[in-house]
Amino acid sequence: MKNKPKNFMGKNFLLNNYIAKLLYHEYAAKLPIIDYHCHVPPREIAEDRQYSNITELWLSGDHYKWRAMRSCGIDEELITGSASDYDKFKAYASCMPSLIGNPLYHWSHLELKRYFGYNGILNEDTAEAIWKLTSNKLSKGDMSVKNIIKRSGVELLCTTDDPTDNLEYHKIIKEDATFPVRVLPAWRPDKGLNCDRAGYRDYIEKLDEASGIPISDLDSLKNAYLNRLDFFAENGCRVADHGIDETIPFKIVDEAALNSIFKKALETNGTGVSFYEADAIRTHLLKFFAGEYNRRGWVMQIHFAVLRNVNPAMYKALGPDTGYDIIGGRPSVTELARLLGYIMKETELPRTVIYSINPNDNAAVAALIGAFQSSDGTKLPKIMQGSAWWFNDHIDGMREQMKVLANMSAFGSFLGMLTDSRSFISYSRHEYFRRILCGLIGEWVDKGLYPADINSLAQLVTDICYNNTKSFFRF
Amino acid sequence: MKNKPKNFMGKNFLLNNYIAKLLYHEYAAKLPIIDYHCHVPPREIAEDRQYSNITELWLSGDHYKWRAMRSCGIDEELITGSASDYDKFKAYASCMPSLIGNPLYHWSHLELKRYFGYNGILNEDTAEAIWKLTSNKLSKGDMSVKNIIKRSGVELLCTTDDPTDNLEYHKIIKEDATFPVRVLPAWRPDKGLNCDRAGYRDYIEKLDEASGIPISDLDSLKNAYLNRLDFFAENGCRVADHGIDETIPFKIVDEAALNSIFKKALETNGTGVSFYEADAIRTHLLKFFAGEYNRRGWVMQIHFAVLRNVNPAMYKALGPDTGYDIIGGRPSVTELARLLGYIMKETELPRTVIYSINPNDNAAVAALIGAFQSSDGTKLPKIMQGSAWWFNDHIDGMREQMKVLANMSAFGSFLGMLTDSRSFISYSRHEYFRRILCGLIGEWVDKGLYPADINSLAQLVTDICYNNTKSFFRF
Amino acid sequence: MKNKPKNFMGKNFLLNNYIAKLLYHEYAAKLPIIDYHCHVPPREIAEDRQYSNITELWLSGDHYKWRAMRSCGIDEELITGSASDYDKFKAYASCMPSLIGNPLYHWSHLELKRYFGYNGILNEDTAEAIWKLTSNKLSKGDMSVKNIIKRSGVELLCTTDDPTDNLEYHKIIKEDATFPVRVLPAWRPDKGLNCDRAGYRDYIEKLDEASGIPISDLDSLKNAYLNRLDFFAENGCRVADHGIDETIPFKIVDEAALNSIFKKALETNGTGVSFYEADAIRTHLLKFFAGEYNRRGWVMQIHFAVLRNVNPAMYKALGPDTGYDIIGGRPSVTELARLLGYIMKETELPRTVIYSINPNDNAAVAALIGAFQSSDGTKLPKIMQGSAWWFNDHIDGMREQMKVLANMSAFGSFLGMLTDSRSFISYSRHEYFRRILCGLIGEWVDKGLYPADINSLAQLVTDICYNNTKSFFRF
Repeated sequence: MKNKPKNFMGKNFLLNNYIAKLLYHEYAAKLPIIDYHCHVPPREIAEDRQYSNITELWLSGDHYKWRAMRSCGIDEELITGSASDYDKFKAYASCMPSLIGNPLYHWSHLELKRYFGYNGILNEDTAEAIWKLTSNKLSKGDMSVKNIIKRSGVELLCTTDDPTDNLEYHKIIKEDATFPVRVLPAWRPDKGLNCDRAGYRDYIEKLDEASGIPISDLDSLKNAYLNRLDFFAENGCRVADHGIDETIPFKIVDEAALNSIFKKALETNGTGVSFYEADAIRTHLLKFFAGEYNRRGWVMQIHFAVLRNVNPAMYKALGPDTGYDIIGGRPSVTELARLLGYIMKETELPRTVIYSINPNDNAAVAALIGAFQSSDGTKLPKIMQGSAWWFNDHIDGMREQMKVLANMSAFGSFLGMLTDSRSFISYSRHEYFRRILCGLIGEWVDKGLYPADINSLAQLVTDICYNNTKSFFRF
Repeated sequence: MKNKPKNFMGKNFLLNNYIAKLLYHEYAAKLPIIDYHCHVPPREIAEDRQYSNITELWLSGDHYKWRAMRSCGIDEELITGSASDYDKFKAYASCMPSLIGNPLYHWSHLELKRYFGYNGILNEDTAEAIWKLTSNKLSKGDMSVKNIIKRSGVELLCTTDDPTDNLEYHKIIKEDATFPVRVLPAWRPDKGLNCDRAGYRDYIEKLDEASGIPISDLDSLKNAYLNRLDFFAENGCRVADHGIDETIPFKIVDEAALNSIFKKALETNGTGVSFYEADAIRTHLLKFFAGEYNRRGWVMQIHFAVLRNVNPAMYKALGPDTGYDIIGGRPSVTELARLLGYIMKETELPRTVIYSINPNDNAAVAALIGAFQSSDGTKLPKIMQGSAWWFNDHIDGMREQMKVLANMSAFGSFLGMLTDSRSFISYSRHEYFRRILCGLIGEWVDKGLYPADINSLAQLVTDICYNNTKSFFRF
Repeated sequence: MKNKPKNFMGKNFLLNNYIAKLLYHEYAAKLPIIDYHCHVPPREIAEDRQYSNITELWLSGDHYKWRAMRSCGIDEELITGSASDYDKFKAYASCMPSLIGNPLYHWSHLELKRYFGYNGILNEDTAEAIWKLTSNKLSKGDMSVKNIIKRSGVELLCTTDDPTDNLEYHKIIKEDATFPVRVLPAWRPDKGLNCDRAGYRDYIEKLDEASGIPISDLDSLKNAYLNRLDFFAENGCRVADHGIDETIPFKIVDEAALNSIFKKALETNGTGVSFYEADAIRTHLLKFFAGEYNRRGWVMQIHFAVLRNVNPAMYKALGPDTGYDIIGGRPSVTELARLLGYIMKETELPRTVIYSINPNDNAAVAALIGAFQSSDGTKLPKIMQGSAWWFNDHIDGMREQMKVLANMSAFGSFLGMLTDSRSFISYSRHEYFRRILCGLIGEWVDKGLYPADINSLAQLVTDICYNNTKSFFRF
């Protein structure tokens, strides 16, 4: 039948011509994964956690899925409420036909294929059978956290850690000689920068304790941070991450003003400081951290433009990271350029990766990085645009980010995919990315836009999927 | 000849594979239309108006066409001036070859096909023959307004009405037992919110009169509105609409300040109030209305980001709604999130549909709605992103809005097309939308991205084209 | 082999169906070029410069290529440093495989094909052979600047000139009876508008001298400009250009305030004036210039949203226009609409072309122009959206701008490509544009979206590639 559609998510899913298939199957698919940014708990690795069912694995902490269920009119009881694990899974399965076009459709089916060997369709009718199948497979040893990581081809993994963390689980993981995957901490100091949030003094007290350095002003704060930076470095940290809400700070005030804002933040436990005052602290600390990262050879990541916890009732009920963050509307690439220029003048810019959650920033960020490059003898530039992030982590979003980057910068320098996941079986998203990447390149070449020089294209794909990350982070 | 292009706007216009054709011809094409938002005058329905020629029907009030003609260098005399109806039509026809790529090209040809049986090309050469053909057809009874609506498959239609309106024509229409289409009023209180516009006191006096409640302060203003809300509810109103110019208001001041701004607005007839003061009134009234809509089970629509009447000379000559509105450049999704959060805290959020005229807002609005969902037992969420609106109501704009919504939310919950039209033969735009929708889904399935499960896809299409609207608005 | 990709940049590069091929080869390819906006030095034309190697031609002044090299990790020594011309060329060639997706890939290969007859691939391995080939060709007389311009099919060319320029080279070029191409000056008064930049008084002194009018206040400044406007008009100028950094100015203050800002700018040599004060001067002078352009029948170009010189270290080392400008993040289409409305009220709007470097502005600018059209008896409107500019001058960016313009305006009125180049062999970018244009139209027609009426389509293509520019600028 000549009208027959292509097989659903078959072997050549997302690969629509000879070049794309060749690049994916012969090259991309075979490369290991360097997962330089994710949110999985190191404790679950250290303890080699085993899941009792797919709801624990899929639905206990994944706010992407929660949002999707709410968008299908599912009652909160079946999402974060006290309904049974089976009913929650069935409710999620019932949403599937409505989620056509959403990356969860593909992620869910890819995970069922790759980790559970299920090649059918997930929906309300198949939910029961899939529940049984997955429960059975999850009870086997090869689905413990460490084994999932190993069979996913992961070579190295960076968690996300607060400067006050004692990194105990990282130490335990390192001691397990049978587990070949490097699990490194990553430095994420957001809480210390946001002195306009309630609980700021409580946090600074934890930092005081962790560092052993009494914190009373900006200087002692920075000393405490130096202590923790060294501690993280000793434990293998190579990368820092900053989640900057809504707009990039760029506000320069003198040291006396900074100290008076900091003091007020401590006295009021964060409640007496305005957003604009806090931006002065954020600007100052970002500059301080940037210099320190550069000194230690770390990479600085900046994730920005998120507007968090916009639903007051649900924030009260469920707290942060529960599906109530959105894309911030205010552009701030101008401030970002000013901030990077300021860092360059006052200290040195470390290698940096920039991600905006607002797809409107794609072009401006891709243009911006070109203005801050410098060479250090590797074949990679200093400043990178990160891959499509969060709300943009889907076929259209990834293709768009890749095309914008290629149009405005050097595609061959692209860092490629990061997992950014809260679940251990999200590694199939690397497959998704790699298929999309090879599909795009194949499309270009198939149309005669670029030479069908397989060696050169294979190099490009290998660089983007693996080499560039390894070199850039100095792993 | 293997190089032959596809037939121009033929049977499978916009349908490029088997699945798309099947979904459109077997399902979408057969569904009735629920026209929940348009700008047609109820009087013309009540009086069952008959048009004497196509210029009356097409060019007497359609500022989309006026703009297009101006963009082809046509003299204003032939657009809104005193030229003859025939010359105006001929001038419009002469623009057609330049309008390739513009939705007017397709809308005009679709209307000629579906309402006049003309399947050729419209241009300067064919203008005379088409003028004769359409004049002849328009003189027949089946082209009276009521018959146009009936033959278009319209089941229900909401007009756009000011709170001071006495809804006399709606009552007349309802009394006609031979006309099976429900024609309901829709509440559009913009004039009462914009207390920074000249003529504000004049308007409030009309409201005073319509409600029978003397208005001297905010409390009496709200009482007058309660009276009119009840009156609209008695007349079948189920939906409100707010046209919010440029940016979403979010400014909270205390009641005394509000009353003093309101008083100043009355005293100066709107001329003494700043945009920022008026935003405080707008914020307060939007919150008030939202609570009242929710109480009555109405849906709240928010249309925002338009910059109106930017051409001072033409505004003076022709007044508003004559083709001089544009896309506002300032983003305000952040303010929108704050406003919805504020409404939730102070009262309750009604079911809501959000439309921005700026396509840059697509992603942020699609992400925003996910943060305000809650379930009320139906399978639909509470907050919707409306379909591509006004300047975006074309193939690229509709596909983009659908893809963004699908990527970030649940496509199966989409409310689908609205007409937003000022002409009775614009119903063929639903055909346009449905072909684009089926074309997009067919494309996905054809590439193997989703299962070729016809039952499930047919359900999706039927929901988006008909069921969701019916359920969401509780029609 | 049925899987064989299309030939790399072959005869039908970017042309994927019969209609596209026909329109390009039979019509577009044969049209002359009117280069109404570029940055080539008139001196090099007057002196009929000859280049000694391809590095001189390609890499001595092209900051697009410099940025791309920096984005591939190339050392600055090999970009703007003291490395040999050959090593610089080889470094650029070595970047090519990483630049897949970047327009430089196509521009470079097109130039090698069209000017040097080299049809292979440029990369590190082929660099030496290409160096030899191009050096040899460049030594021949047909590669002198005048001959390059002639063989490129250029009919007319506008340079970019400061009001203080004496246009000596334009006069010399005009006197060469053997050179048939008209080379006209274009008025670019940016330096006089930006009174918040260091060196402002120095510049005004040059203007004072060039005009022979002593400048002490705004009135004498405007008199000096009138003198220079007349001088440019006498020398054939038909077009002005304004490069407006970051956001469009719209700040109205009274004449006393303007004079006091201007005085302060002179006294402090530009260093004592704030951005906001300077915006008042910019608003006032733009209005003044607009009226004068209209009086002289000139076209006003506005290029906006660039953020310049963001890298402080490199600005210090290399100065402006060296690859450190980016896309400004702040939207200002609202201010643009206000400014145009203000100009209309105070004087008259000249024919105008608007370009934003931020692709997010595409839709808003395309909608805006529709609100300022008026007819002057030609078939063209008064206000145009310019073609995709600078960072957007690639396949995706050009297609996007064309589609947005077609969707929201009249594609048949489009002004088409401009070169905006700093190199004499950039004329092949017109070929690139024309292929993309014909490819897009062919794609539409092939899908049955528009009639396959070749005469009408050929007219459209001819208008966009040639006729519209000629009529609009009154060349």
